[in-house]
Parts: sequence; structure tokens; C-alpha cells
Amino acid sequence: MDFIFKSRVYYSDTDCGGIVYHARYLDFAEHARSEMLRTALPKVSQNEMRHDGMIFVVKSIKIDYKKPAYLDDELTVHTRLMKAEHFSAVFSQEIKRGDDDICFLEVKVAALSSDGKRIMMIPKEVVQALS
Amino acid sequence: MDFIFKSRVYYSDTDCGGIVYHARYLDFAEHARSEMLRTALPKVSQNEMRHDGMIFVVKSIKIDYKKPAYLDDELTVHTRLMKAEHFSAVFSQEIKRGDDDICFLEVKVAALSSDGKRIMMIPKEVVQALS
Amino acid sequence: MDFIFKSRVYYSDTDCGGIVYHARYLDFAEHARSEMLRTALPKVSQNEMRHDGMIFVVKSIKIDYKKPAYLDDELTVHTRLMKAEHFSAVFSQEIKRGDDDICFLEVKVAALSSDGKRIMMIPKEVVQALS
Amino acid sequence: MDFIFKSRVYYSDTDCGGIVYHARYLDFAEHARSEMLRTALPKVSQNEMRHDGMIFVVKSIKIDYKKPAYLDDELTVHTRLMKAEHFSAVFSQEIKRGDDDICFLEVKVAALSSDGKRIMMIPKEVVQALS
Repeated sequence: MDFIFKSRVYYSDTDCGGIVYHARYLDFAEHARSEMLRTALPKVSQNEMRHDGMIFVVKSIKIDYKKPAYLDDELTVHTRLMKAEHFSAVFSQEIKRGDDDICFLEVKVAALSSDGKRIMMIPKEVVQALS
Repeated sequence: MDFIFKSRVYYSDTDCGGIVYHARYLDFAEHARSEMLRTALPKVSQNEMRHDGMIFVVKSIKIDYKKPAYLDDELTVHTRLMKAEHFSAVFSQEIKRGDDDICFLEVKVAALSSDGKRIMMIPKEVVQALS
Repeated sequence: MDFIFKSRVYYSDTDCGGIVYHARYLDFAEHARSEMLRTALPKVSQNEMRHDGMIFVVKSIKIDYKKPAYLDDELTVHTRLMKAEHFSAVFSQEIKRGDDDICFLEVKVAALSSDGKRIMMIPKEVVQALS
Repeated sequence: MDFIFKSRVYYSDTDCGGIVYHARYLDFAEHARSEMLRTALPKVSQNEMRHDGMIFVVKSIKIDYKKPAYLDDELTVHTRLMKAEHFSAVFSQEIKRGDDDICFLEVKVAALSSDGKRIMMIPKEVVQALS
């Protein structure tokens, strides 16, 4: 089942093309994954994780833009964990405005030690909670 | 009475000092003023205003930083219209994390024609609704 | 032959993981494509294009992250036009720090009317100049 | 004598008002102060400083907006150290497009321990080099 996260479009999200700046959807998608994690594991904070020695990093993204979004739009980010392996997890994310498809993302994440130097296993409790 | 707007801190809001990037509070403050306007005048959208020929622009800001905010923090933006004249309005904004003061802003805004070339009067209905 | 664009990493580009925020590379890549266009067609400005009725929009992006980049790094964006058709163009972009590969992007762009409503042909002079 | 830093306006810097987003000037000003420090003290990197235990933080900003800037504009940031005390330094910064004044900033910075918890003295060599 999808995790749903809503996000409003503000001036800071737009560009002079009159639409949401294309890189900004990666932020919205990151916010949605963070809230999905917070909801699944309310006791775990990413900030504490970081101090405990682990950060999540993005390994790859594919994004397809379908329609532009505009100032004041209310966007809905639908997020689903597609695949989880020891060292990576793949999320499928869809950003919509009502029934309109705005964009689709496939995001692969991995876990690193906080100094950014070693790959770590994604904790099982995280995978289970997100599934 | 203050208008209250809540905003979560995500990775995209932070910098490698481990804290919220200092310019990002201007975004949070802008989001709060936009939501205040939306709440006061639910029928008016800034995007339609823009197509109808008027945009709001910031004329000046004073911001004092009190304490840093961190990833995962839930911030509360308290916004109040301090002064409204024909061609400008001044907002006082306070960003807090629980009882902690994070920063204070004084933001002066004006209205311009959508092409950015002429100063316009701030519509009376906007001032009345925000007061 | 690749078009080369250099970009320094500042605080505003980083996140509290201590590295460049992953969405920020899309900005660097956009800046590089803009400078490539400016170099290829010095008389054409994207801002005038916009007022003349055409904007470029991104249709899809694939990005693979290889190594993190850090504050103060000098990054080099290598950009090449891979394929150009009537209604779309595909750029291959590689972001490096010295010899280190930071990330690879494949970016598909299209042209829209300035109101965002109609697809337009990418002007031949643009394609020729970028090739 | 002013330190001069040039910055181009890209799509990522603008908003749907068709102008540079107001908070973005704080980024340009930060980039200019960083380059001023790099030029004054070529052997000192802010990233190493951070690992050595000290970060610079902004304590307050006053910014006055004079004229809007647009996509493709080349902006020049003029930066001067106005006042330096043991625990704070004040910079005066002016952002121009050719002879046009875009905005003026007064930025007060302080030094903190990397964990953000203690105020530190600004190193004398930094003040001397910037003066």
C-alpha cells in the first residue's frame, strides 16, 4: 500500500518558466520518504541515526516528467518500497495533482557510515517497517 | 493574533554545518505568509493574482538567528501583520521549535505589476483580511 | 567534444550528511547546459526566448551517483549532446572532481510554448550549434 | 577595498514571479564571503576548519531589495569586512548588475564549535586576512 504525503507548491519551488523547478521534485520525494520512515518507525530519527553512525544516501534516480505543476498546487506523493536487498532499497514514487500525473520517480538508496566512507547494510527493522 | 504555520526540517533544508541553512528560514517565512493569505482569503490564489497582473515582492528583511535548528525538527512559524500602508506591508515573524526561539524576522513586502515594472497598491481586501 | 563547466561547492549546496545534497547535481547540470547554449549561441538568451514564447523543459533524467562531493570541492561538468530529434534532445552529462567520477546524468529536454501548454520543435539553429 | 565575486543567474535561482527568488541573494552573498576567505587565506578550507572543530554561522542579516534580477543576468557581489570583534564580524555586501543596484546586505557572522554548541573566537589570522 502506498504511503501518501502532501506538499504545497510555494514560490521557492518554482522557476521563471512559471512552473515547479524540475530538481525540486527530488526534494518533495525525499521529504515523502523521510515521512514514510517516521511513520513506520516513530522512535527512529534520521538525525539520531546520523549521530549513531549511519546515513541514507541516494544511489540512483530515474524521473519522468509528465505535466508541469504550478504555484499553489497541492501535490500528493505516493511512495512504495519496491525492492529491498541487503545493501540497497528501491522506492517507486509518483507525484500527482488530484488525478493528474506530474512525475514518476524510481529511487535507489543505500546506507553509508556517517563519515561517508563505508557502505553499510540497511537495518532489517527499517526494511520490515517500510514493507 | 498570530497565524501559526508548522514546517518540518528535511535534508534539503540543512547544510554541512549540521544545521538548517540560514537562507532557508526565508523560505519557511514565505511559506507561512502564503498560507496566512490562503487562510485569510481562501478564494484568492497568488497564482491567479499573478495572471491577473500583480505579484508580491519582498522589499526588505531583517533576520536575527537565535539558535540553530536541526534535521527532523518541527518548526512553528508565528506570523503577524505589523503595519500596512498603501504601498507596503510589514510582517513580524518568529520561528520556534517548541519553546526555543530559532529566529526572528521583520519582512516588508510590496506589490508589483506582474512584469515587475510598476509598483501597485496592496489591495485593501488583502490588508483587511490579514489584520 | 564535451562542453566543460566548472562549479564550486558552497554551504548552500550541502546537507547535514556532510555531502552535496543529491538534488543539487541537477542544478549544476542545468547551469552547465545553459552555459553550453550561451557559448554555442552567444546572441540567444534563454530569458529572451522565454519572452519570445519558448521555454526548455526537462522531460526525463537518469542520474547515477558514484562518489559524494564535499564543501569547497571544485566540480567539473562535462556535457555532450547525444541525440537530437524534432521534439527532444538528449544530453549526457558527467560530473567529476579531478579524476573522480561524482555522478552521471542522462537528461532529455523538450521545448514548450512559454505558457507551458504546447510542445514546440526545438529550433534547428539550437541543435546545430550544440552539436 | 571590496572583494568582487561574479555570479550568473540560472533557472534554479528564479521563481515564477519571473525574477530571482528573494532568499537566493543570501546564497550569492554566502558564496562571495566564502570566495573572499579562500582568496585571503588560500591554505585554509572551510571544510577542514569544520573537521578541525569550527564552523562560521550567520547571526543576523539585513537585506534591502532595490531592483529585481532576471534569468541570464550576471551579478557582481561586492563584499567588505566592516567591523571585526572577538566574537563576531560584520560584512557589508552589495549585489549589482552592471551599474544597477540589486540589493544591499549587512551580514553578521560568528564562529561556533562544529557541534554547534559553543561560541568561539574568530581566529585573528582570519580577521587580518579579510581586512
